[in-house]
Amino acid sequence: MPERSEALQCDRTSKHSRSSTHQQMPMSTSPSYDATTITKSIRSGKISAREICVEFLERITTCEPRIHAFAHLDPEAAIRMAESVDSRSVKGPLAGVPIGVKDIFDTVDMPTEYNSPIYEGHRPSRDCSAVARLRAKGAVVIGKTATTEFAFMHTGPTRNPFGRNRTPGSSSAGSAAGMAAGFFPIALGTQTAGSLIKPASYCGSFAYKPTFGRVSMEGVKPLAPSMDTIGWFGRSVEDLRLLAEALLGEEWLAGVTVTAPLKIIAAETDFWDESSADVREVFRWSLEALRDSGHEVQEVTVPFDYRTLAEAHKVINDKEGARSLRYEYEFHRALLSDSVLKMIDDAHERNCTEEMAARAYIQVKTRDMMNFMKAYDVIVTPSTAHEAPEGLAATGTSNFIKTWNALGVPQVNVPVRRGRHGLPIGLQLVGAYGNDSRLLDIARTVSAELGVETSELAD
Amino acid sequence: MPERSEALQCDRTSKHSRSSTHQQMPMSTSPSYDATTITKSIRSGKISAREICVEFLERITTCEPRIHAFAHLDPEAAIRMAESVDSRSVKGPLAGVPIGVKDIFDTVDMPTEYNSPIYEGHRPSRDCSAVARLRAKGAVVIGKTATTEFAFMHTGPTRNPFGRNRTPGSSSAGSAAGMAAGFFPIALGTQTAGSLIKPASYCGSFAYKPTFGRVSMEGVKPLAPSMDTIGWFGRSVEDLRLLAEALLGEEWLAGVTVTAPLKIIAAETDFWDESSADVREVFRWSLEALRDSGHEVQEVTVPFDYRTLAEAHKVINDKEGARSLRYEYEFHRALLSDSVLKMIDDAHERNCTEEMAARAYIQVKTRDMMNFMKAYDVIVTPSTAHEAPEGLAATGTSNFIKTWNALGVPQVNVPVRRGRHGLPIGLQLVGAYGNDSRLLDIARTVSAELGVETSELAD
Repeated sequence: MPERSEALQCDRTSKHSRSSTHQQMPMSTSPSYDATTITKSIRSGKISAREICVEFLERITTCEPRIHAFAHLDPEAAIRMAESVDSRSVKGPLAGVPIGVKDIFDTVDMPTEYNSPIYEGHRPSRDCSAVARLRAKGAVVIGKTATTEFAFMHTGPTRNPFGRNRTPGSSSAGSAAGMAAGFFPIALGTQTAGSLIKPASYCGSFAYKPTFGRVSMEGVKPLAPSMDTIGWFGRSVEDLRLLAEALLGEEWLAGVTVTAPLKIIAAETDFWDESSADVREVFRWSLEALRDSGHEVQEVTVPFDYRTLAEAHKVINDKEGARSLRYEYEFHRALLSDSVLKMIDDAHERNCTEEMAARAYIQVKTRDMMNFMKAYDVIVTPSTAHEAPEGLAATGTSNFIKTWNALGVPQVNVPVRRGRHGLPIGLQLVGAYGNDSRLLDIARTVSAELGVETSELAD
Repeated sequence: MPERSEALQCDRTSKHSRSSTHQQMPMSTSPSYDATTITKSIRSGKISAREICVEFLERITTCEPRIHAFAHLDPEAAIRMAESVDSRSVKGPLAGVPIGVKDIFDTVDMPTEYNSPIYEGHRPSRDCSAVARLRAKGAVVIGKTATTEFAFMHTGPTRNPFGRNRTPGSSSAGSAAGMAAGFFPIALGTQTAGSLIKPASYCGSFAYKPTFGRVSMEGVKPLAPSMDTIGWFGRSVEDLRLLAEALLGEEWLAGVTVTAPLKIIAAETDFWDESSADVREVFRWSLEALRDSGHEVQEVTVPFDYRTLAEAHKVINDKEGARSLRYEYEFHRALLSDSVLKMIDDAHERNCTEEMAARAYIQVKTRDMMNFMKAYDVIVTPSTAHEAPEGLAATGTSNFIKTWNALGVPQVNVPVRRGRHGLPIGLQLVGAYGNDSRLLDIARTVSAELGVETSELAD
């Protein structure tokens, strides 16, 4: 486990300055401190889960006051969980891996507040399905990470470790920022529009959103249940796969090998006008690198209309969101943010004909995309329109992400390199519905060819 | 409000004997005591919500020890809720209607135990979306009704009011039995296989399962989320519609009028061999009555295979059920019933190829049925294979119900008449996907033509 102590020193003087030279470099210079290495070391007896936990907690203690990645942190409880892993005779595949869990996942031993004053001090009576599964395999929930209110728009206190006057993105803000700050090697989030890929792109982490419905949402506060999807952040594609094996089941991941050259679609989408010069440059550079590696990169028209699909996404998001937050709206309205109230108002202004049309459009296009993708391996497209914007109140557009989320297809963010303001810029890989294993294989190939096998930590 | 006191007297000597003459009569002889009448009377000031609540509570006090419909009952709290409705200046469309709520719906002011010892005394921190919506419209949650464990198979203590040595059906047992006992005029349940239509048929109540996804499952313990659907029991189609307007939204119910004659498909299904002579006779009698009313009744082959679909239902039920109960399985295994453990074992024996195939079959057949139903108004088929069987441990097959549930289409039970053992037998109406309003309109027509506009109470 090389350079571990270096990776966990937050307050030291930066070795990697954000010079213009650095900005042109791929983000592959950070020390490796990934979940796969950690659990191998613990399972082979080289280090204990407790020691790992303490090291991460030390880094958290030093840096958290400037990042605010956590909604809840109880270091002693985390250490007890790690000790309990150490005491097991049979170590699970995630033995001792510290994990940050977005604070909309119910946890039996920690508060779950959804970033809403309605739920101050709320203690669920059980772990949600996903957390139970990870714990059973040995993961140590090191804390609950900050989220926007109910995973919608109203932001929390979290800052971007790569530029603390900038947003970390939303809604899985604390999980993404905590990854960049080195608080944990993996973290859980959810995505309804852009809540995994966007903060991953802004904070320079790998992230993976599985095909819709693959991981049980039981015990996770829903926003729009026909689109809500659990996903996770990791420092490498290998770590994304480690968690995929735990949460999807190993059988889903078996037996796929990518044979080069890949048939790649380069999608500028209908939102290209919104993208910054940096994002365009990173995108073109990535395409060039993929062509240089021998892959076939084509611009092909996809079988749906981006703007119609984005509008359908909004209709479903608002109508289902209003239903999901019915209790809070009826009985605690004064404690809801303006953005949630606006969403519910928007929902009430739309009629059922609009909702049915939106749902039908998404259903038809999901199936059309299944057929369309039989001829291609992967779609590449920008993850976000620009680097993380300044300020903490707004988090920028999810237009480059939400259409794919509406179609239920798997998505990956690869943190390619930094832009002119020193903030990370990601490349989004979109796979075929249900073919998650193949997408993760492709992501490993692509990230290697772009020279970013491990994500960078913020200094 | 005619004959109210009569309807609420449980311990008096039966006026309606279960003679063979009676068994041949349609079940239309009970006094009207329905939700529509109750709320009209309260809103017009004829009677208070408190008075209504007290009357139902008196009946409950007298009869509940022999029925065991409730998982939780707090009469004083119910009266306080009713008083709070009385104190409102603006009365909602469900003002003062007592409602039984299956004990898998989270409620903020009552325990929610899912009929599992793991959750003894469990107090959720909020109402689920559906309960919040009903309360906001004036409904009074009179108690939590008994369910099978996690709405799967392991039964509770509930008895069938029409024959107390017989099952009320599952899983929404307490809601259906409480309807038959006159404990409340409407009740909430859920259905994944047959959990609404079966107990409604066994207990002689009307019931309605909306199109999949129409009512938010937020705050309801999931079993198989791609099939779990909230529905409800009522004493008339008018009451089913009253709740539909509250839970689906009035807009979904607007503007449909049934123009006779109906194009009806009579479906014996591939499970006809399982049906009893009584069920066959009720089915044939119903078809005859519908033909006599001038409708066109045809036997047409549906565009799916019943047994393949039933098998696909089981695969999805088990795979998703195992995921939904992950926390309970990992951390409280000793407290799970054998039936849940067997479901999870079955799930682990199936691989992802089977799951994908099952899901694809359901998706394709759902779409095929959408097209197929453009040429027809409604499918009629038995609700259950037989009268409620003897004993409380097993609840009989859901084969006549689960295939339709897998397809997501709306279903209604019409309690036609009693069988040779004095137990009710229902007719199932199956509508086109998304066309719930039309199905409810058809159900009103059909129930009138069969002479069962109001369901019978058990004596």
